[in-house]
Amino acid sequence: MATFTEYLWFNTRAPQEFVRITDEVADIVSRSGIVDGMALVSAMHITAAVYVNDWEDGLIHDFQEWLEKLAPAGLPYRHHATGETNGDAHLKRTLMGHQVIVPITAGKLDLGPWEQIFYAEFDGRRKKRVIVKVMGERG
Amino acid sequence: MATFTEYLWFNTRAPQEFVRITDEVADIVSRSGIVDGMALVSAMHITAAVYVNDWEDGLIHDFQEWLEKLAPAGLPYRHHATGETNGDAHLKRTLMGHQVIVPITAGKLDLGPWEQIFYAEFDGRRKKRVIVKVMGERG
Amino acid sequence: MATFTEYLWFNTRAPQEFVRITDEVADIVSRSGIVDGMALVSAMHITAAVYVNDWEDGLIHDFQEWLEKLAPAGLPYRHHATGETNGDAHLKRTLMGHQVIVPITAGKLDLGPWEQIFYAEFDGRRKKRVIVKVMGERG
Repeated sequence: MATFTEYLWFNTRAPQEFVRITDEVADIVSRSGIVDGMALVSAMHITAAVYVNDWEDGLIHDFQEWLEKLAPAGLPYRHHATGETNGDAHLKRTLMGHQVIVPITAGKLDLGPWEQIFYAEFDGRRKKRVIVKVMGERG
Repeated sequence: MATFTEYLWFNTRAPQEFVRITDEVADIVSRSGIVDGMALVSAMHITAAVYVNDWEDGLIHDFQEWLEKLAPAGLPYRHHATGETNGDAHLKRTLMGHQVIVPITAGKLDLGPWEQIFYAEFDGRRKKRVIVKVMGERG
Repeated sequence: MATFTEYLWFNTRAPQEFVRITDEVADIVSRSGIVDGMALVSAMHITAAVYVNDWEDGLIHDFQEWLEKLAPAGLPYRHHATGETNGDAHLKRTLMGHQVIVPITAGKLDLGPWEQIFYAEFDGRRKKRVIVKVMGERG
């Protein structure tokens, strides 16, 4: 059994931004030499999400509109008493999920036809990290 | 350390259907020979969920009604510009979660008294897969 | 590869209570001797959640208010025909998520600066368990 760990860095231009990271994760798995196992892909900041869904701009727009409806910005969140203004970002990231486990089979990400891995930033314009930890059998 | 991978296939009759899969997962774990570790159970399609909760028809009805309230069908989702009509299914599956990790201890699924694993289909009537990847120590 | 399993017990005084468990998980990982791998932290009851977010009382209050809005208590849930009165607790726990995987690197929980692990109880005042299963390489 082997493990292999790398970190992806993000510093988005917009406060909210969805970034496809399937290729970056696949590249880390490839360099790990692990051919059967699992890759944990997990946001290390609490106003960002990692999720799996479709790579389709309309759907990403739907997600963003939906999150705004269920977890609106601009409400008088009690968290804001700390000086923060990102209460909604904590809730939005909770709805999307903060991590995924990607199975690895025969040296590749074992994803369905439409599965893509996304990083979703809800409080951007600063440096943030995602950990990718691969665990399994080398070839 | 060993790994063992199988796929469950679904082709539900109804567009939306919740299917208990605890026994199928337990059977795969049993055949894997792995007695201590984890089983990843993950939907490979982006309009389906895998979750753990109670095996009780009333509650399943409550989940479905609740999902319809939070992520209604029939809205003019932008995703529908692609020809799809399942925008809500992507949101519903996001609320329920698309994967779970089931711990394995002493050769069995290490679940609490009421924990059951479910596959939740939100855009059915076509063939879909769930991956079950078991990782851990053989006996 | 090694595995190590322990259980955390909870019996909260209030029906709803959020409990920080980062230190308890770190302690189990330390005693496991595993220096690189993953720890699964998973609620074994279906009206409780395990999630990662900020350790800030205002935010916890925001989470609770938000959950009450999206999954209110006191509705005529069909689940209540069984004699239960906790339909909302099943939904709330679903929103927060029932498990997390915590990466372990260099013998420590590999968490970002603000990441804290929480147990969220939505139907307390009885004994409940969380499994912590650590898997990885010993030092």
